[in-house]
Amino acid sequence: MQKNQKISFLEYCVILLYKKINQYILKKNKLLLFWVLFLGMYISYAQKKPNIVFMLTDNLGYGDIGVYGGGEVRGAPTPNIDQLATEGLQLTNFNVEPECTPTRSALMTGRMPIRSGTSKVPLPGLPQGLIPWEYTIAELLRDSGYQSALYGKWHLGDVEDRYPTGQGFDEWFGFPHSSAESAWDNSAGFDSALVPNQGLWEGKKGEKSKRIGDYNSNNRGLVDEMITDRSVAYIEKHAKDDKPFFLYVPFSLPHSPPLPNPKYAKKGKSNYQNVLMEIDYNTGRIIDAIEKMGITDNTIIVWASDNGPETLMTSDNVIGGQSDSGPFRGEFPSGWEGAIRTPCIIKWKGNIPEGRKSNEIVSMLDFYSTFAHIVDAEDKIPTDRAMDSFNMLNFFTGRVDKSPREFALYFHGDDLLSVKWRNYKVHNTVVVNPSGPVYMAGQSTLNSLRVKVNYDWIFDIENDPKELWNVNAEYAWVGVPVAKIVSDYVKSIKKYPNIKPGDSEKPKKGK
Amino acid sequence: MQKNQKISFLEYCVILLYKKINQYILKKNKLLLFWVLFLGMYISYAQKKPNIVFMLTDNLGYGDIGVYGGGEVRGAPTPNIDQLATEGLQLTNFNVEPECTPTRSALMTGRMPIRSGTSKVPLPGLPQGLIPWEYTIAELLRDSGYQSALYGKWHLGDVEDRYPTGQGFDEWFGFPHSSAESAWDNSAGFDSALVPNQGLWEGKKGEKSKRIGDYNSNNRGLVDEMITDRSVAYIEKHAKDDKPFFLYVPFSLPHSPPLPNPKYAKKGKSNYQNVLMEIDYNTGRIIDAIEKMGITDNTIIVWASDNGPETLMTSDNVIGGQSDSGPFRGEFPSGWEGAIRTPCIIKWKGNIPEGRKSNEIVSMLDFYSTFAHIVDAEDKIPTDRAMDSFNMLNFFTGRVDKSPREFALYFHGDDLLSVKWRNYKVHNTVVVNPSGPVYMAGQSTLNSLRVKVNYDWIFDIENDPKELWNVNAEYAWVGVPVAKIVSDYVKSIKKYPNIKPGDSEKPKKGK
Repeated sequence: MQKNQKISFLEYCVILLYKKINQYILKKNKLLLFWVLFLGMYISYAQKKPNIVFMLTDNLGYGDIGVYGGGEVRGAPTPNIDQLATEGLQLTNFNVEPECTPTRSALMTGRMPIRSGTSKVPLPGLPQGLIPWEYTIAELLRDSGYQSALYGKWHLGDVEDRYPTGQGFDEWFGFPHSSAESAWDNSAGFDSALVPNQGLWEGKKGEKSKRIGDYNSNNRGLVDEMITDRSVAYIEKHAKDDKPFFLYVPFSLPHSPPLPNPKYAKKGKSNYQNVLMEIDYNTGRIIDAIEKMGITDNTIIVWASDNGPETLMTSDNVIGGQSDSGPFRGEFPSGWEGAIRTPCIIKWKGNIPEGRKSNEIVSMLDFYSTFAHIVDAEDKIPTDRAMDSFNMLNFFTGRVDKSPREFALYFHGDDLLSVKWRNYKVHNTVVVNPSGPVYMAGQSTLNSLRVKVNYDWIFDIENDPKELWNVNAEYAWVGVPVAKIVSDYVKSIKKYPNIKPGDSEKPKKGK
Repeated sequence: MQKNQKISFLEYCVILLYKKINQYILKKNKLLLFWVLFLGMYISYAQKKPNIVFMLTDNLGYGDIGVYGGGEVRGAPTPNIDQLATEGLQLTNFNVEPECTPTRSALMTGRMPIRSGTSKVPLPGLPQGLIPWEYTIAELLRDSGYQSALYGKWHLGDVEDRYPTGQGFDEWFGFPHSSAESAWDNSAGFDSALVPNQGLWEGKKGEKSKRIGDYNSNNRGLVDEMITDRSVAYIEKHAKDDKPFFLYVPFSLPHSPPLPNPKYAKKGKSNYQNVLMEIDYNTGRIIDAIEKMGITDNTIIVWASDNGPETLMTSDNVIGGQSDSGPFRGEFPSGWEGAIRTPCIIKWKGNIPEGRKSNEIVSMLDFYSTFAHIVDAEDKIPTDRAMDSFNMLNFFTGRVDKSPREFALYFHGDDLLSVKWRNYKVHNTVVVNPSGPVYMAGQSTLNSLRVKVNYDWIFDIENDPKELWNVNAEYAWVGVPVAKIVSDYVKSIKKYPNIKPGDSEKPKKGK
């Protein structure tokens, strides 16, 4: 952030007063020394870069949270998250990637995951994650004077130089893959000798990350409490440090199996409802810690989800019903709105107007550039690679009404599923429900089919949020700006070839 | 409403003061006469029964309005309706009947429309509507000292003694059937000699209702402005009357064909988006008139929709996309939540707490008893017939958190489609999408199939708002309380047989 943006009028006055007093002291006596020192400390405090606390839920759909139409309506009130929305900016057109790994990659790099070889969740055992060459937001913040920690799900690499501490974090605790694996030990015939448990891990910068235990069906429901305990302790420990901090909290919930902590679970509520209320409770604990330590004024809080709902009914969740996509069609992984539009709330007291709600297009990709600008590190954004991150600072702070972003591309694996441009969405490859015995209502995450459309399907996602009417017949012109977006991407990968999944080095630069 | 409920502490003090002054005057001089008269007038004003303005939209789904997740997200901001919600009670589990005529019947009578022969929209030309024997809320209010008017859609009868003025209203303007008919003159081969235009009508108590013109494709988009003009004029004319008023405003929009008034329509917006914004604008005009006339403190404003969305794509609406069901499954007419859960906002300044949101079960049926209690006319609620109306006064005013209603039955025609009980819904007959060429995505209103389920389908509508997982295997016990509700209904029709569609007299009483 530029200096003139960071200093409020009050702070400006204080600085002016400080200078005047200084001049006075030089002329007169030293009795005012105490006050001068105090003011100096205040100014240094006021100029400290803001802490960043980024909470990310796992497979939580647009419709689960109270302010997004869920909460009480879903039988699971979410008062803490709702309160956060009234104190900050609630985005209703926040765009993520269609799956966990890609979205987390986008947040870390500000680059479309297709560029980083991370556009799909690989099976455990296969090479995965970000190559060390990527310059993550954790590295950028570290190089800008930040300390950092990650507590929770990583899903961007499971070898030493790809763990969070290999990618810029000072410390981490959590698990490298998906929580789905925690249920495997429950299934008949499972052989842990062939398929090792991913484990719970912790690591510190400069040390090898250590496996500290299993992550299985015994403790699946306890992990978010561990994540929250560590997050609260971190805030308490580092709130008064000279260095600002970046705390990344990727919760394990509500990803399947959605098992609540027995300590909090209420009888008469489904597992999923209990899980939602637990997420809200843990969110509240983290916000309370920020409040208690007196750093609310200088802490950016982001609360979001990585992709749309999964709606599985498994034997672990007999009551049925999991996450909800709200008014939108489809679930993850797909190019439907239900998959790629999730809740996102951003609070930054004194900088982001309270209670604002916006339907402007913002992407998970955009936090990279936005954070870089907030911490005066725009010069650290890499220029030797393709970047896809828009600086949202002026939009978030309400200086402008419009987001600078007008489009988003949704890749999954090698497929470009769809492209959003303004209020239109153009589909190239769609995920549809199969018929026949493999199919059960709501299980489309695992049972769906991926098919290419014959001609592009075009939907007006404002007029038709459920993407029911293909308007290609009258709106084929939408293909023109969309073709430009796609051809810009194609040009960019000629210049900066994509990293392939499993690569360990960056590809040679193109022409 | 009981006396002790109607008089606030302030009013109590004023009355006490009035009595004291009166005593003083009797002892002393007459100089205070002016003030005494003024206070007397104030007390009489304060004790005037509240006006009721009931706005009802036509086929507007749960998801269209800003505070229900639509508005800006749908490209159609609804600031006036959103504002109303912040000033009153927003219901998120408001239950209507599956179609226009039944819901309007429920509002008028407080009786399930299956009892009144009004559980389905009949084809024009067939006998339809409420028989004169029904004691409508307009009649109950008339007998309690109210004047009244209806401007808009009636859909409860098209012969003299079944027009609104035959059912208790002092005057009316509008149309007797569905707005769908207004598009018929546009379709190839239409013969107006065989199928007469329903017309626009007006009527006054004691006079025959008059047909004042056609209601066709030329003026379909103008009708809501006429309705609003008359509503505003009525409020201005009657605000200061001694008699309180009941103004029922059943808008024609957004029912198909959703054609906006060209005066308001914005380029770059779809017909449906323009229609939504027009509804909001007209709502604002009516609220402003109430405000301008200074009767906000003594006027109950209800804003609701009669049933869930229709999602048709016709040649009149080439842009595609019409109403939205929000997070719920299905559209009208069906027993899915999308069909029978609609927006409902109730404002009554000083009596209903501001900004309250509740997911308690309320039905359109309940306004009958609630209004009767508000106007001290509970003794006028008929006891010679089956009634299905719960008094919501204590719930609306926040004296209790819980609604007295725990269930709702959804009939359409002769079919009991489904029953809601607490957070469960039991389906007996479901509306499903057909496959094959007759079907087009989103046209299920007209192309859907009605099928009986093999065993009851049971859904947890809180945990599973989209009604995807039938939980009958573990939750068959839900059938027990639901069977009790159904058997109570069956008992009631033995005692009070249902009126059949086309009947003109009430059936003979059973045993």
